[in-house]
Amino acid sequence: MIDFKKCVNKEITISGFAEKVRNLQWVQFIVLRNDANRVQITIEKSYEKNKEMIELVNNLTNESTIKVTGVLKENDKVKMGGIEIIPSKIEVTSLSAPELPISITDKDAALIDTRMDNRFIDLRNDFNFYIFKIQSEFVRAMRKYLYDNDFVEIHTPKLIGTASESGSEVFEVNYFNNKAYLAQSPQFYKQMAIAAGYEKVFEVAPAFRAENSNTNRHATEFTSFDVEFANINSYEDVMKLEEELLVAGLTAVKEKYGDLIKKLYGVDVVVPKTPFPKIKLQDLYKELNERYGYEIPSHDVGDMNAETEKLTSRFAMEKYGHEFIFVTDFNKTKRAFYHMRKDDIPQGYDLIWKGTELTTGAQREHRYDVLEKQAKEKNLGDDIKFYKNFFKYGCPPHGGFGLGIDRLTMLLLGLPSLKETMFIFRGPNRITP
Amino acid sequence: MIDFKKCVNKEITISGFAEKVRNLQWVQFIVLRNDANRVQITIEKSYEKNKEMIELVNNLTNESTIKVTGVLKENDKVKMGGIEIIPSKIEVTSLSAPELPISITDKDAALIDTRMDNRFIDLRNDFNFYIFKIQSEFVRAMRKYLYDNDFVEIHTPKLIGTASESGSEVFEVNYFNNKAYLAQSPQFYKQMAIAAGYEKVFEVAPAFRAENSNTNRHATEFTSFDVEFANINSYEDVMKLEEELLVAGLTAVKEKYGDLIKKLYGVDVVVPKTPFPKIKLQDLYKELNERYGYEIPSHDVGDMNAETEKLTSRFAMEKYGHEFIFVTDFNKTKRAFYHMRKDDIPQGYDLIWKGTELTTGAQREHRYDVLEKQAKEKNLGDDIKFYKNFFKYGCPPHGGFGLGIDRLTMLLLGLPSLKETMFIFRGPNRITP
Repeated sequence: MIDFKKCVNKEITISGFAEKVRNLQWVQFIVLRNDANRVQITIEKSYEKNKEMIELVNNLTNESTIKVTGVLKENDKVKMGGIEIIPSKIEVTSLSAPELPISITDKDAALIDTRMDNRFIDLRNDFNFYIFKIQSEFVRAMRKYLYDNDFVEIHTPKLIGTASESGSEVFEVNYFNNKAYLAQSPQFYKQMAIAAGYEKVFEVAPAFRAENSNTNRHATEFTSFDVEFANINSYEDVMKLEEELLVAGLTAVKEKYGDLIKKLYGVDVVVPKTPFPKIKLQDLYKELNERYGYEIPSHDVGDMNAETEKLTSRFAMEKYGHEFIFVTDFNKTKRAFYHMRKDDIPQGYDLIWKGTELTTGAQREHRYDVLEKQAKEKNLGDDIKFYKNFFKYGCPPHGGFGLGIDRLTMLLLGLPSLKETMFIFRGPNRITP
Repeated sequence: MIDFKKCVNKEITISGFAEKVRNLQWVQFIVLRNDANRVQITIEKSYEKNKEMIELVNNLTNESTIKVTGVLKENDKVKMGGIEIIPSKIEVTSLSAPELPISITDKDAALIDTRMDNRFIDLRNDFNFYIFKIQSEFVRAMRKYLYDNDFVEIHTPKLIGTASESGSEVFEVNYFNNKAYLAQSPQFYKQMAIAAGYEKVFEVAPAFRAENSNTNRHATEFTSFDVEFANINSYEDVMKLEEELLVAGLTAVKEKYGDLIKKLYGVDVVVPKTPFPKIKLQDLYKELNERYGYEIPSHDVGDMNAETEKLTSRFAMEKYGHEFIFVTDFNKTKRAFYHMRKDDIPQGYDLIWKGTELTTGAQREHRYDVLEKQAKEKNLGDDIKFYKNFFKYGCPPHGGFGLGIDRLTMLLLGLPSLKETMFIFRGPNRITP
């Protein structure tokens, strides 16, 4: 975007959407929107030389795109930053149909499904537009943290030969008349990188879940930010890295977009203090019971559910004044077979942020015989033979975690649903546009 | 990795693979490999206090992983950097089976398919190992260039509702008993971002092609680096941006890995001069004919093929001393319907590097009526209605390009096949590991 302050009284060329065209008796105004910046274009009708332009603006519909050449002037009367452009030339690069299918200014006037059908217009509202600029900045800063700490970015296959962890929730692909599946996570492959000798790896890529559920925090496709690294002493090292990663991301977001986030979404971006508070699941149950009279339902004992997560954040804020809290010591029946156990307790955690689980992390079981035992316990057989193989020829202790960046963005901005924080949402009933 | 120079005569702890265990009469040596760094561990057999360690090393297999604590000593006799660690403690964190399925030192001893079956061991060879460290650096630097130029990173869906561009080459997914498909490219969606008002976007993500072909430069899944930006004047702006992007990537790679690439792969990393040479396809045909007696086969007229690409690079080097060359003015029948045309000539290019097409780029057709006409010409109907819609309500002039980072890496390092430069290769006959 042009730095307007440097261009006062100079001729500039600027392109963008004609957000609002106003045709008054003596003057025409256009609010030009470039990315999310706005500038006023002012055309005096009394000048003979403007005749052609006036005619053009007479026929200009809102949301058409234009390219304007003119002199930038300071004018205290202009509400939009005290500047305006006095154009010498306007070119219409595309003419919008006069009626838009949804409103841009009133983003909630349409139902969410109508909005998703017209996502390319829905996103023109600043509220929606900035979500992805903020997300991009968050991910940029987290990536930078990892690069600066010698992590290697890998790209693992999404087409896989076996249904892996849990066959029921995997999409099936017709692969040259054989069956293939879509990867639910890069878990096995990032661990393969560790077995191959890479000490620190990460990946940002789509993950697919064939869950037929319609909650505000599930999607059939989402973008997963996955980290895995070797030579750790315990899952505490994993928690520490995740703390630092989130601090790096939130620091950058606060610096670049903190004020805007406060203004648009009403949310204070808080850079969390480290270390984050930690609590064992059994102690958490006790706290939630004593404080809020909460009793975990019997089928969720050893685990958390949506209600537990909400109360956990309330507790973290009340006791520690902290938005984040690690919960550890889940029951082994509730955790993946590849989590390392010590005295039968899974060596991992959930990280809860603003009432929702953001991550599951863990030290992985790298000892072949133990891994095989734990896999059998969960009735996992030949499908994961290729994976178990990774641990036969030397594999160092390692751990990692994964987080969905769409969910991360949803929680950051306090939005009600993933439908708002995915560029294009995918759910059981939604495969378009 | 530990900076050894700062640790001389100090106690350190280091983990890694026991790459080579040697048991001599008076001494034991271990070459410890951490990531791609090596250090010698020396255990004197004559010391009583070493008894337990000696016993441990007696049973240590190559490629097991160990954690070593000891004092770092300078020793001119040690070939490996003139330093060694005199350990006080060695812990075996995982014991490798004694026989590896493939050789690490002689990477070409096994057939490529056997190597791919055992990719987690295949990658332990430095030659293979560094490919992905170099690729990560290349992509990091290109991303940084884009971030620094205000691009937003987007994440577009890979599950799509219609077979889009060309139904024949698209994988079909069973989507809750309906049909979905895997995206061949983010083309339509990155253009949607432009229609939504984002001025500059990019994406790095998997793309899927159901082509049943087994060449060295095709895969059914690859990682595509896609760029799209608005308010361009012509496709020359797109070429210029791509030049700068590649210069940024190659500069970073040369700085960090230039010497190593020369040593391991025998390749000089050349940071190309800008602007890259450009030639129109008809002029190219003439040059290739005059210089090499080459005649384009009639079914390829208006386009290039593998042979043309090879000769084009030879020509670019001979005439311009340049590794890169843009070829423009292809025939419209050989280009996608969404490429803008001027006087019936597609406003795009192929970028050729080292004898192979690296990219196709173009200005896109953003005028609804023209786009519709061009789509009809290629017999594209209702499937792309959602896409054509993007151009009805204002969409600025824009263009972009995409490149496969696996192919980029293959060309950079002069490797013979994508099978070498994909972390895990996917082809018609290869869906594992």
